[in-house]
Amino acid sequence: MAEIATLQHHEDSLEVVWSDGVVSRYPWLWLRDHAHDADTMHPLTGQRQLFTARVPRALRGLSTDVSDGALHVTWDMLEPTTVLPIEFLATYRHPRVARVAVDVPVTLWKAASITTPTVAHDLVMNTDAGLAHWLTTTLQYGFCIVTGTPPTVESTAALLRRVGYVRETIFGGVWEFQADLAKADTAYTTLELRGHTDGTYSNDAPGCQLLHCLEFNGDGGDSTLVDGFAIARRMEAEHPDEFETLSTVTVPGHYIGDGSHLLATRPVFRHDHTGRLAQVSFNNYDRAPFMLEESDMLAFYDALRVFEELANDPSMQWRHVLQPGEALLLDNWRVLHGRAAYSGLRRMCGGYLNREDVESRLRSCR
Amino acid sequence: MAEIATLQHHEDSLEVVWSDGVVSRYPWLWLRDHAHDADTMHPLTGQRQLFTARVPRALRGLSTDVSDGALHVTWDMLEPTTVLPIEFLATYRHPRVARVAVDVPVTLWKAASITTPTVAHDLVMNTDAGLAHWLTTTLQYGFCIVTGTPPTVESTAALLRRVGYVRETIFGGVWEFQADLAKADTAYTTLELRGHTDGTYSNDAPGCQLLHCLEFNGDGGDSTLVDGFAIARRMEAEHPDEFETLSTVTVPGHYIGDGSHLLATRPVFRHDHTGRLAQVSFNNYDRAPFMLEESDMLAFYDALRVFEELANDPSMQWRHVLQPGEALLLDNWRVLHGRAAYSGLRRMCGGYLNREDVESRLRSCR
Repeated sequence: MAEIATLQHHEDSLEVVWSDGVVSRYPWLWLRDHAHDADTMHPLTGQRQLFTARVPRALRGLSTDVSDGALHVTWDMLEPTTVLPIEFLATYRHPRVARVAVDVPVTLWKAASITTPTVAHDLVMNTDAGLAHWLTTTLQYGFCIVTGTPPTVESTAALLRRVGYVRETIFGGVWEFQADLAKADTAYTTLELRGHTDGTYSNDAPGCQLLHCLEFNGDGGDSTLVDGFAIARRMEAEHPDEFETLSTVTVPGHYIGDGSHLLATRPVFRHDHTGRLAQVSFNNYDRAPFMLEESDMLAFYDALRVFEELANDPSMQWRHVLQPGEALLLDNWRVLHGRAAYSGLRRMCGGYLNREDVESRLRSCR
Repeated sequence: MAEIATLQHHEDSLEVVWSDGVVSRYPWLWLRDHAHDADTMHPLTGQRQLFTARVPRALRGLSTDVSDGALHVTWDMLEPTTVLPIEFLATYRHPRVARVAVDVPVTLWKAASITTPTVAHDLVMNTDAGLAHWLTTTLQYGFCIVTGTPPTVESTAALLRRVGYVRETIFGGVWEFQADLAKADTAYTTLELRGHTDGTYSNDAPGCQLLHCLEFNGDGGDSTLVDGFAIARRMEAEHPDEFETLSTVTVPGHYIGDGSHLLATRPVFRHDHTGRLAQVSFNNYDRAPFMLEESDMLAFYDALRVFEELANDPSMQWRHVLQPGEALLLDNWRVLHGRAAYSGLRRMCGGYLNREDVESRLRSCR
């Protein structure tokens, strides 16, 4: 860990020169705001007890010193001495905007480069390492199958609860389904389902989805997955105009039925405030009407065509017929999922998890 | 309703001149994409059955005519005749980007201008008009009290379910609380709680929160609400630099405890893609550390100070001691809520609703 070499007081900030030569500037207000005493920051929750806005704007450090692995600051006003661990300071020694997702390397893939990521049910349920492997792999590749899962609804629910609480939606929590022609949704037919992400009609699309096969006696029914981030990368390189269109045009999704009329909107390629691709969101089934100026509208259709050509190109697709006992966790902010047409009996069970809950569990188990 | 006066075929689009002089351009692809036949759009759900990307890019209308309240288009390729209701076309006769929220006028307020919005429990539970009044008022003013609610957890749950399912969080669904010094959260003390919004650590902060008073025997404990949109308007006019800072700096929120470590980020003033203020998100208690360049960091603290001065200015606050039987629904995307210190026994019950679920119910009941 870096050590502090020298301290120098400036008008608005404390300059820290680290032993490896890095120079950091910590505003006096920031140092006061992030003091680690219990009256400023709760020792367990990290909740800020301080009324930050009441700290005088003109507060300046009177003296500073380093001892016992911490920086100590006394103030030129009646404020308590501020203590901050060096380790904490080191974390913020470079400007560091909020980037909240868990740090997992992302490996882009296409059909030729992907080997089905799997983890054994026993490991996931009984070890932290197994759980961490499952979630890390899901975020790295966009999906991971838990093998040897007992083909019961209870086991599906237990897998979901191993990560967090089950997200409630208009479909309930843990759902079970098979083809049901009485339902007015393509997902309940035996027809092909082209690649899509779920929840384009929710302000917060489910972060992850678990799809567990309980029973399958039939033909066809391949699950198909496509790496939406890989599509984005290819479009950015090969079709920059269409990439730009899908990064800026906000596309509404809707769900109408069962007394609900849900609406939400976001671009197909949503970038976060640092400019990094954060989410791919695409569902042509649930796209709601909107109208742009003629040239923009045509540009949208051109971009949609490019996107769908890549999403439906077999060279981009992982295909696999899920067997009873296989529970597929997929990253619904990245991977499009679909299904080939089938005949016979196919009974599935599944549920949704919020993004931040998946990330939270991964932080706690690895 | 507007009527179609003339139709003219262009290369990429159909020009419609309406009887009131408005000229609209509908791209041929858009007309095909939004055909109202069952093979294109499901008659109940509005789900698109069409594989839009497979529609030939060069598709053009061969002939068009208006009859039976609909536009009929035959194509120059082997595509089925497209029929679109004139009413549907009229909805999109001007460019119309996705704006998904329910259309409710927003009335900004401060202490002197706000009269507590209320609605009777019986009306909410037993009539669509009462339910619509409750939700419309909540979105118009940012809050509305249901009076005469039986002071039981069951009644709280019933009110929430009258709107939609209860959102599940790390706190469960419907929660009940009173001061509990064993819990590591300021909300469980009897201390003052300054104005804040909930869920800054969730990617999707709860759209609305219900706070129902079950029992109160004590002193103090005023609920305080501040119109975050009114703060935004004042800052935009009086402190444009600080407004800009809070509109662009993304602030991380975190929740640490009970085995969870949640993180999410957004600006205090989040604008949608049309540039309209969509959400105010502020919680100094749950703000997570981040570090910007010195001048940006100082600008953030300056902006935070301006914001908190307005949020804690009594002239901006609605104050009211909630009594048993009063159930307060508040718009957590707009209004900051807080509580004065108190002594005695205060037992509360409440729960969260997703934004899109509140809007969905309002669409269906008004």
